[in-house]
Amino acid sequence: MSLDALRTQAAALAARVVAGETRSIARALRNVDDRVPGYLELLKALFPSTGKAWVVGITGNPGAGKSTLTDRLIEALRADGKTVGVLAVDPSSPYTGGAILGDRIRMTRHANDAGVFIRSVATRGHLGGLSRSARDMVRVLDAAGFDVVLVETVGVGQDELEITRTAHSTLVVMPPGLGDEVQAIKAGLLETADVFAVNKADRDGADAAVRDLELMIALGSEALVASGKRRGHVVHGGVKVDALPEAPGSTPELWTPPIHKCVALRGEGIREVVSALEKHHAWVTSTEAGRERRRGRLVEEVREALRETLIDAATVALAKELDETVSAVEARALDPYTATEQLLERFRASG
Amino acid sequence: MSLDALRTQAAALAARVVAGETRSIARALRNVDDRVPGYLELLKALFPSTGKAWVVGITGNPGAGKSTLTDRLIEALRADGKTVGVLAVDPSSPYTGGAILGDRIRMTRHANDAGVFIRSVATRGHLGGLSRSARDMVRVLDAAGFDVVLVETVGVGQDELEITRTAHSTLVVMPPGLGDEVQAIKAGLLETADVFAVNKADRDGADAAVRDLELMIALGSEALVASGKRRGHVVHGGVKVDALPEAPGSTPELWTPPIHKCVALRGEGIREVVSALEKHHAWVTSTEAGRERRRGRLVEEVREALRETLIDAATVALAKELDETVSAVEARALDPYTATEQLLERFRASG
Repeated sequence: MSLDALRTQAAALAARVVAGETRSIARALRNVDDRVPGYLELLKALFPSTGKAWVVGITGNPGAGKSTLTDRLIEALRADGKTVGVLAVDPSSPYTGGAILGDRIRMTRHANDAGVFIRSVATRGHLGGLSRSARDMVRVLDAAGFDVVLVETVGVGQDELEITRTAHSTLVVMPPGLGDEVQAIKAGLLETADVFAVNKADRDGADAAVRDLELMIALGSEALVASGKRRGHVVHGGVKVDALPEAPGSTPELWTPPIHKCVALRGEGIREVVSALEKHHAWVTSTEAGRERRRGRLVEEVREALRETLIDAATVALAKELDETVSAVEARALDPYTATEQLLERFRASG
Repeated sequence: MSLDALRTQAAALAARVVAGETRSIARALRNVDDRVPGYLELLKALFPSTGKAWVVGITGNPGAGKSTLTDRLIEALRADGKTVGVLAVDPSSPYTGGAILGDRIRMTRHANDAGVFIRSVATRGHLGGLSRSARDMVRVLDAAGFDVVLVETVGVGQDELEITRTAHSTLVVMPPGLGDEVQAIKAGLLETADVFAVNKADRDGADAAVRDLELMIALGSEALVASGKRRGHVVHGGVKVDALPEAPGSTPELWTPPIHKCVALRGEGIREVVSALEKHHAWVTSTEAGRERRRGRLVEEVREALRETLIDAATVALAKELDETVSAVEARALDPYTATEQLLERFRASG
């Protein structure tokens, strides 16, 4: 198909997505996820209609009860009259295309609610990373007019933490009692978290988990300052977020990640989590520090996209040279450092 | 300093490294790790002296007893008259530069043995990733003439699995009883493992761990075939590696990752692990499939280095354009996909 034909087709699909047609949204998501020819034209056509949705990332260890909490958040947001798009991302799953089991169950539960759209992405190994794919799919849901887009990840691996960077506000869900795994990646989790929820708070160890989080936040305060946050003011139970805007004009520049206990299974503490997330949203959209963070993430996105585009273009332009170079390095006739410099020069000269 | 002066200095340091001077080796590692000006010239000067060492990666969950097993491997290799360089990598540690505690203890133990050199790398967040830094540091130890270079990682995160890809042979150390964490990343671990060691095999759960591994290998056989391996022939205890070269001429093409039980603390089963690793080394160096794998990793390295070099060069060449582009995307006057294509064109035109 010619580029013009792809563009025409993409524009037509984009119009149906913006009109909120469910089947077109599903198709657009599939096209973007699978990167079928024309997907970039589709994203270009959708982009002017994006920027309205509030994107909320939900991450945390397996077993923390993220799915149940996500369900409760959907309910609470729907009760407020907001429409909700959900992207459930599983970078470690070998499944492709279709919905995973938990997703099917949830889809069934919300099947009669046109204000909820749930889609799971289980593919991995995309060129350019799953985070790019997730960001593009979030844009589809954004353009489709959902007020809130929830991006839920299965675990807390590097891929998953990167995915949460596509969100405005990220909720980190913790089980009562933190394992070694959390300790090992605490730096990444702390940088990611805008709100902490200690779920299953009716179980033993919930207070210990809160204390562990307090300690981690205290230890990680340096990292938090570096990322535009600061040491958290800890809240047990109700929303008492220190130094947040009480009234316009008293806007503080730094966000304090609060910690909330909840029991998603029984629907306890959900409203407090939603309120904390909403306050964070207000921070992101109304303060200079929040705007800087959003701009920083856009810079990251453009740099990341450029990085992938450059290597793709270079791989095409230098196919023969790359092969010869590797042979020369293999024979130790050329070192890989000089080789890389030479390839760069050749690529720029080929432009 | 001029490039010529940097080159002269690098050549002098390289010569001292190749001569095996301990303080120069330490200095070269520091320069490479910190990427001090001239480090690339140093690596270029060292490269012709590399390619002789056998690089062994050691990875596995925290608590698997990797450090103790590494110590035993050092002892066994020294008993065989081989010199050993050790790089202990901790991507999650905030420490920089100096040695971590366990490393200091080990250094003390081997302090009087000139045939052992241990260095820990605890920095993170390097541009281009820790795996690039680790590979470069391995080259320093290789050029310094160590017969074997052991690269030990602290955990089994994505960074750490990537680091093991710089090795010829990778040992995955498992504790008795596998947790959820292992299950979650089993695909990565299976692709990485050339030899499995179930350590602390005197404890309950060692046989269960072996069975879990068998199951994981069976489930992951498809992935293994894709990466040039195949379903493992499982060995409990002694080295019985099915389908390995018994005599020249009967070389099989596929490597079967064996599973060995050991008790590193008491020095039991160590010789079998070393033998399995040595057989793998023979496979990597003497078979066509092994050579293909080495070439594949070299292709990866050159592509990865080119990727970083391209984005670095583009960031310098397009500093002003990048800023303008982000502002235009922020204002939604330009979509990030078209923006990236425009930046690519401008970069190539600027060459």
